[in-house]
Amino acid sequence: MKPDSSRVIADLKELRALTSDEQGGAQRVAWGPVWRKTRDWFQQKLKTELGLGTERDGAGNLWATIPGAKKDSLVIGSHLDSVPSGGWLDGCLGVIAGLEVLRRVKARGTPPVTVRLVDWADEEGARFGRSLAGSAASAGTLDAKKELAHLVDRAGVRLPDAMAENGVPLEGMATAAAYFKRLSPKAYLELHIEQGPVLESMKKPTAVVLGTMGVERHSLRFLGQAAHSGAAPIHLRKDAFLAAAEFALACRAISVKYSGTSPRTRVVATCGVVKVEPNFVTAVPGSTEISIDLRALDGRVLKKMLADAKNASVRAAKKHLVKVEWSPLLHITPRPFDETLMGFVRESIKAVRKGPVPEIPSGPLHDASEMAGVVPTAMVFAMSSPGISHTRIEDTPLPALDVSIRAFLLAVDRTFEHLA
Amino acid sequence: MKPDSSRVIADLKELRALTSDEQGGAQRVAWGPVWRKTRDWFQQKLKTELGLGTERDGAGNLWATIPGAKKDSLVIGSHLDSVPSGGWLDGCLGVIAGLEVLRRVKARGTPPVTVRLVDWADEEGARFGRSLAGSAASAGTLDAKKELAHLVDRAGVRLPDAMAENGVPLEGMATAAAYFKRLSPKAYLELHIEQGPVLESMKKPTAVVLGTMGVERHSLRFLGQAAHSGAAPIHLRKDAFLAAAEFALACRAISVKYSGTSPRTRVVATCGVVKVEPNFVTAVPGSTEISIDLRALDGRVLKKMLADAKNASVRAAKKHLVKVEWSPLLHITPRPFDETLMGFVRESIKAVRKGPVPEIPSGPLHDASEMAGVVPTAMVFAMSSPGISHTRIEDTPLPALDVSIRAFLLAVDRTFEHLA
Repeated sequence: MKPDSSRVIADLKELRALTSDEQGGAQRVAWGPVWRKTRDWFQQKLKTELGLGTERDGAGNLWATIPGAKKDSLVIGSHLDSVPSGGWLDGCLGVIAGLEVLRRVKARGTPPVTVRLVDWADEEGARFGRSLAGSAASAGTLDAKKELAHLVDRAGVRLPDAMAENGVPLEGMATAAAYFKRLSPKAYLELHIEQGPVLESMKKPTAVVLGTMGVERHSLRFLGQAAHSGAAPIHLRKDAFLAAAEFALACRAISVKYSGTSPRTRVVATCGVVKVEPNFVTAVPGSTEISIDLRALDGRVLKKMLADAKNASVRAAKKHLVKVEWSPLLHITPRPFDETLMGFVRESIKAVRKGPVPEIPSGPLHDASEMAGVVPTAMVFAMSSPGISHTRIEDTPLPALDVSIRAFLLAVDRTFEHLA
Repeated sequence: MKPDSSRVIADLKELRALTSDEQGGAQRVAWGPVWRKTRDWFQQKLKTELGLGTERDGAGNLWATIPGAKKDSLVIGSHLDSVPSGGWLDGCLGVIAGLEVLRRVKARGTPPVTVRLVDWADEEGARFGRSLAGSAASAGTLDAKKELAHLVDRAGVRLPDAMAENGVPLEGMATAAAYFKRLSPKAYLELHIEQGPVLESMKKPTAVVLGTMGVERHSLRFLGQAAHSGAAPIHLRKDAFLAAAEFALACRAISVKYSGTSPRTRVVATCGVVKVEPNFVTAVPGSTEISIDLRALDGRVLKKMLADAKNASVRAAKKHLVKVEWSPLLHITPRPFDETLMGFVRESIKAVRKGPVPEIPSGPLHDASEMAGVVPTAMVFAMSSPGISHTRIEDTPLPALDVSIRAFLLAVDRTFEHLA
């Protein structure tokens, strides 16, 4: 049975028409009405095309199952939710490609292992700020009471109330991990858009994902002395902003140093938040807050980058006669993917397209990051062009979409053979 | 008649007690009730000690006069107004030292030329944002209708209403320049605290002021492309903040290059405002606004600094693949002081204290900056320690205050001889 992308692309277009606003942005924000409408549409498809019902676990993740010769299961998943005014492919590409997997399985009769398609709840965390909530609950890495119970959206709605409105009590989230274990999962596969410009710059439609990068995120405060821009001579200043500027440039150099020349070994360093005090045209900055977000797939490299960044901050502070304090914001462990499954993805991409197969790490996190901690996991990336996401102009050209979907369907087939 | 600082210092302490709040900060904000109380106190002193009345010009500047043998006048001035919670010496030192000048003149009989002591109105611009309003009106460099009529304070009070409350109609400001000319001014002298750390670092109590620096103040916008901190590889980024960081460090290097090693030739460059967009921990900055404030006493140097800064901004933009736009905010011409009067200040400082006499430019502007455009002008600086101002902890140690006041009084005497 030759893999075909046409039904997947047709479904994605149908979903775009159903869940976008006038300007064309997807509005499938988790726990809201458009998200519910999306899931209704998805469940209707499963019902009418395949005669399949769905089940919801304690975290609100939506499961469709085709029992196989064995109880062991291959899990296919991604997320139907989007950020507000998001793109047409982020998340739903993987779920709708999973629907195509179910169609192919159904057409071939009882599969060698059980197939489970999951639509993870609230991957984006767009409304309440905690991303990967559903997949983290299933992986057993979420403490719902501690991490979710206090969250409130911009309108003042509490997350537990928004979940309850969807029939998902917060107290039930703790059951999702045991539910997942009972499925006897043996492999997890996910197709997702890259959300970045790497494949576009390599002119490649699809890639093996090596894993998701670990993250070291910290907030720094450089403390100097505010002074009058005219009265304070340069050599007597304690300019907190200049120290932060040196630090930011040093962090860029650190990321270049550890990235090497291959997209495989790419690491990143970003100073995204900068707040200067007193922030007047005539005032030498007395204090500057700056954030650093370091990412690498190799945990040892990430550790070295952090050590280098700390040294750079101390050097910058010393040079500008200021002090520096670090406060940790987030630590995420790198999640390298499963070698065997990555091999299947590599072969599948080779089968649909000539030439070398790109292998790149993912800077952004995915539900697959949570899965990689509990089950052998792999991902297929579809090129993004333009290389951005979380915006209505996010896109993947149809030829690249076609190649990525077909490679993913082949990788699923090879994984079936492996698990049989 | 030996110059003596004791009455000046006693008056300053009396004024501090009268116009400070509980925390000890001066509250003599122009056009407000404490400022009016300050002027009442000052007028009372002139009346009871010297039998002198005062006159207010169209800009609200307060004048006391002792007619001399000639109509030509020596003008002594500074400002009684302060910033909110300001220091005890900023401005009032010069006015109260001027009161001592009048005492000395009165004791000696008719002076060779007419002596005029002026308390300039609203030097600080603390409430409405336009500094040097009174002295600029007298120098003929203020267009009150254009520059003042629309100004509003934080409470929503209009400047014209605040002035009217003090009996100073905005429409009358235009008459201040003609009033000033009629005084036949031949020299202007001002004693002021340094407000910076230069003299403290040189361990000198007082100095000749070479003039006030010119200012080139601009706002720059670096325009790149916002991107996800994980998804965007370093070499494909258009990071607007990194360009701004390079620019700020380049401007520091420019100021070091042109400062040389002498306090005489000191110039400064300050990036005080920094605003990053979108300012998220996970976002590569897509745009950054940054201000630059360049100051130098030598106009040719200031021009070169600006040209260097423009080149640096273009290089930084190119390096980080972003664009840069400049918007001018303020241009102030350097105001070098009068060589002859500076000579009198130099001799006077030598007469009260052994050792080399420091000669330094002023980074901050003063009423003397406006005067220097229309009359030969000189200033005496008193050391600040700590080297800051516009705060309640602003101070000058009493021995330094004593030396500065005595040098100023001698410089006034020498100027009398010169004008006689």
